[in-house]
Amino acid sequence: MEGGRGVTDAVIDLNADLGEGFGRWTLTDDEALLSVVTSANVACGFHAGDPSTMRRVCALAAERGVRIGAQVSYRDLAGFGRRAMDVPPEELADEIAYQIGALQVFARAAGSRVSYVKPHGALYNRVVQDNEQAEAVVSGVLRAGAVCDGPLPVLGLPGSRLLAVAEGVGLPVVAEAFADRAYTWAGTLVPRRDPDAVVHDPEAVIARAVGIARDGAVTAVGGEPVAVEARSLCVHGDTPGAAQLAWRVRGALASAGVRVEPFV
Amino acid sequence: MEGGRGVTDAVIDLNADLGEGFGRWTLTDDEALLSVVTSANVACGFHAGDPSTMRRVCALAAERGVRIGAQVSYRDLAGFGRRAMDVPPEELADEIAYQIGALQVFARAAGSRVSYVKPHGALYNRVVQDNEQAEAVVSGVLRAGAVCDGPLPVLGLPGSRLLAVAEGVGLPVVAEAFADRAYTWAGTLVPRRDPDAVVHDPEAVIARAVGIARDGAVTAVGGEPVAVEARSLCVHGDTPGAAQLAWRVRGALASAGVRVEPFV
Amino acid sequence: MEGGRGVTDAVIDLNADLGEGFGRWTLTDDEALLSVVTSANVACGFHAGDPSTMRRVCALAAERGVRIGAQVSYRDLAGFGRRAMDVPPEELADEIAYQIGALQVFARAAGSRVSYVKPHGALYNRVVQDNEQAEAVVSGVLRAGAVCDGPLPVLGLPGSRLLAVAEGVGLPVVAEAFADRAYTWAGTLVPRRDPDAVVHDPEAVIARAVGIARDGAVTAVGGEPVAVEARSLCVHGDTPGAAQLAWRVRGALASAGVRVEPFV
Amino acid sequence: MEGGRGVTDAVIDLNADLGEGFGRWTLTDDEALLSVVTSANVACGFHAGDPSTMRRVCALAAERGVRIGAQVSYRDLAGFGRRAMDVPPEELADEIAYQIGALQVFARAAGSRVSYVKPHGALYNRVVQDNEQAEAVVSGVLRAGAVCDGPLPVLGLPGSRLLAVAEGVGLPVVAEAFADRAYTWAGTLVPRRDPDAVVHDPEAVIARAVGIARDGAVTAVGGEPVAVEARSLCVHGDTPGAAQLAWRVRGALASAGVRVEPFV
Repeated sequence: MEGGRGVTDAVIDLNADLGEGFGRWTLTDDEALLSVVTSANVACGFHAGDPSTMRRVCALAAERGVRIGAQVSYRDLAGFGRRAMDVPPEELADEIAYQIGALQVFARAAGSRVSYVKPHGALYNRVVQDNEQAEAVVSGVLRAGAVCDGPLPVLGLPGSRLLAVAEGVGLPVVAEAFADRAYTWAGTLVPRRDPDAVVHDPEAVIARAVGIARDGAVTAVGGEPVAVEARSLCVHGDTPGAAQLAWRVRGALASAGVRVEPFV
Repeated sequence: MEGGRGVTDAVIDLNADLGEGFGRWTLTDDEALLSVVTSANVACGFHAGDPSTMRRVCALAAERGVRIGAQVSYRDLAGFGRRAMDVPPEELADEIAYQIGALQVFARAAGSRVSYVKPHGALYNRVVQDNEQAEAVVSGVLRAGAVCDGPLPVLGLPGSRLLAVAEGVGLPVVAEAFADRAYTWAGTLVPRRDPDAVVHDPEAVIARAVGIARDGAVTAVGGEPVAVEARSLCVHGDTPGAAQLAWRVRGALASAGVRVEPFV
Repeated sequence: MEGGRGVTDAVIDLNADLGEGFGRWTLTDDEALLSVVTSANVACGFHAGDPSTMRRVCALAAERGVRIGAQVSYRDLAGFGRRAMDVPPEELADEIAYQIGALQVFARAAGSRVSYVKPHGALYNRVVQDNEQAEAVVSGVLRAGAVCDGPLPVLGLPGSRLLAVAEGVGLPVVAEAFADRAYTWAGTLVPRRDPDAVVHDPEAVIARAVGIARDGAVTAVGGEPVAVEARSLCVHGDTPGAAQLAWRVRGALASAGVRVEPFV
Repeated sequence: MEGGRGVTDAVIDLNADLGEGFGRWTLTDDEALLSVVTSANVACGFHAGDPSTMRRVCALAAERGVRIGAQVSYRDLAGFGRRAMDVPPEELADEIAYQIGALQVFARAAGSRVSYVKPHGALYNRVVQDNEQAEAVVSGVLRAGAVCDGPLPVLGLPGSRLLAVAEGVGLPVVAEAFADRAYTWAGTLVPRRDPDAVVHDPEAVIARAVGIARDGAVTAVGGEPVAVEARSLCVHGDTPGAAQLAWRVRGALASAGVRVEPFV
């Protein structure tokens, strides 16, 4: 299947984690990535993201028509939200709601709004299988609906408890895939501790992005093709050359006839 | 003129700082005070106030018809917001907006809304005279208007730069007085470092509350009466017996024919 | 064996968690408990404990001859160190060393020294079975030996991985027991989620304290006696009446002929 | 003026702020700078510097014979310690002592020790003129003497209250100068808010470094020479090319016959 512009009706969103500095420290190349992606997962202050950074990223995203998502996290600046925490469900739900509310003020002030929620780091991984925390995240999203135009979509891993629980209570869910992560034959991510977990070759990343977006498939670690469902592709923003690679991915998607559009 | 006991048309609001615990630590007797006051200054996480406490206080306030205000602060948990900080104005404005947005999510989820803003501690004192920080706080309030039903009233000290700046940009302003603080002949507060700064005798506090609310006047440290303008009286919530004293103040106000009503 | 003063050679240490306030917030009745216990587990700033509180508790402990221990924790003020965290071992070891070093400055300035280490809250529970984190805690203790007079003893639960690992590298270990916690027939603690986990009756707590200290035994939940090894008894300091109960325990121990002495 | 290699007995220390990352975030090029400077001002966790970074910097400094100094700060991660704070003196003294103690554990574990103290950012600027905070910093240093081999030298601005107070209580003091900062005719720094405050031309920086170290003089903003007393030169570590410029400075000093040696 060759695709070509106009022959396919494939459509994909590009999302990236942005605003992940804190005070004096910077991490993500927000300016450059906001000219590539269609959805910005903005850090809300719990793993990264001070208020002024949140304001700047929201203003730029609004200006460029990039959707603003709340990248919610455990409260863990020292660990960048990468350390799983046994937070009691009620507390976790409130922490999620707090972060969404804080971000909404900057999104609204920029003339936009928070359009979706995506958990960060260890929380993202935890809610793949932890039903209790998945329910807590969804509770937080529902609570935050009070400052949004209705309940927010949840962006996450297909097959995760998070998406299942969100769907169960009627929240829109959006499946995402990773062009630079290896997949097992079962369509799940190869764990990061595995040496083959990350695809480093830019050409391979680009090819995989097109495969996922246009064909809904990717080559698994064993070499066999595996189906991958995704309405959004996550591109990484915290590595050198990240923005440039994202641009090449976007170009290749266009050449392959895939429309790059936000999911909401 | 509605009157009540017919003799006066005086009306006053009672506000208190609430939700000033953090995680395992508690401070204010939120439950008891929310049955006395008409306005709750809810801590937003920067000097005190974790998300779950914010949710609980908002829920209880909404249930009892108590207005919810954002008690915004410097970012200083270790110092409880009592240490003045030279925060650059843009950062300060964003920190204020962040706090209001975070509180709004719990106020809205409880079926209420953030109705006003009151700075806490060192920030409260700083914006009495510091024009730059007063402007920053007002900028933050204006930014947060995006998640509120229009611009929020600001509660503060009459004569402060904060109220002057807020008024200058068209924000509603509300003057408050303190029944347990000594006043100079000029109508300003006796600084806390002065041994006579605080009135400890409950009977005196009650008499002063009535004097301020009904007559717009209080006895200054020199013994002479001085005019004090106030639409709201601040009662303290972090001392033993605080709620009981607040109850007695409220009772005395009623007996004196003063209506106790929120200002918004 | 009936004991009676002088007839037994039983000896026990009484330890309590102290200095668990933070800035404006207080929790433990440090003043009162420091006149009862023989060992003070002083919070080091990660779950509680600001520098000034640490100084005051160390000064008072030194004055009264109470041993100072570093009550080390996950970095989690918002959760009071009660939320288990997947901290990478190297980071955890460094966090432990940091806390011990920070406390040592106040212990030394008071003319005393840090004499032992006890993990707090979720970390305490985690290292009962988690070998990796137990090793990390021990690594941290070993690193901190550089500012101590040699390697510090570790206080913990008998049978825990922590004590096993510490013993394995040659650290002195001290087993502790809880007079107000229920034990299983196997001599392990009944988990806190169980409704019978905590013994609330003061008389029972006192009797159990004597049983553990003098006879090395306690009545398990099923009613049968079970052996409990302990050189130290933990008394709780964050509940109303805690200090008074601790006094009664100490008195009962004395009456039963048990010497109350620090373990180091 | 002695001049010429071997003919002069001029000696200077090179110090830089290091370890100023926090968790996921990095800032200073510690590895490169530790091969140039003779004294490392290591962040202690209050404005930057997590425990693992502290350990790594101390280990590398010890290995290379670089002296370790405690770069103490206000507690302000969000503001990187650049926001002046009205911290009560007792609290400030304890916060200083805490930081020194925490760093000492890693310095000692690396086989070295904390050799001096230098305040960071807003605290550095504040104690130039604020006597109360200068006294608090000195109190903190004195308290921390309990975990050091006697009282630590204080590194700071000549003419500052900090050095005066430190000298007054018998602490060794070390004056430092800045090759990349403009000086007034009076020998004080041109304030940062002035557009001419910073010297950007590398050649000029190098020439000024030599002038200060060899001749004890620098050209003031008005063009006239002004005497500058310094036993240490601060080189900045948080700008691109910082390490390379530091190398060139060191080379130029050597060529000019100035010995580059730690002050302690």
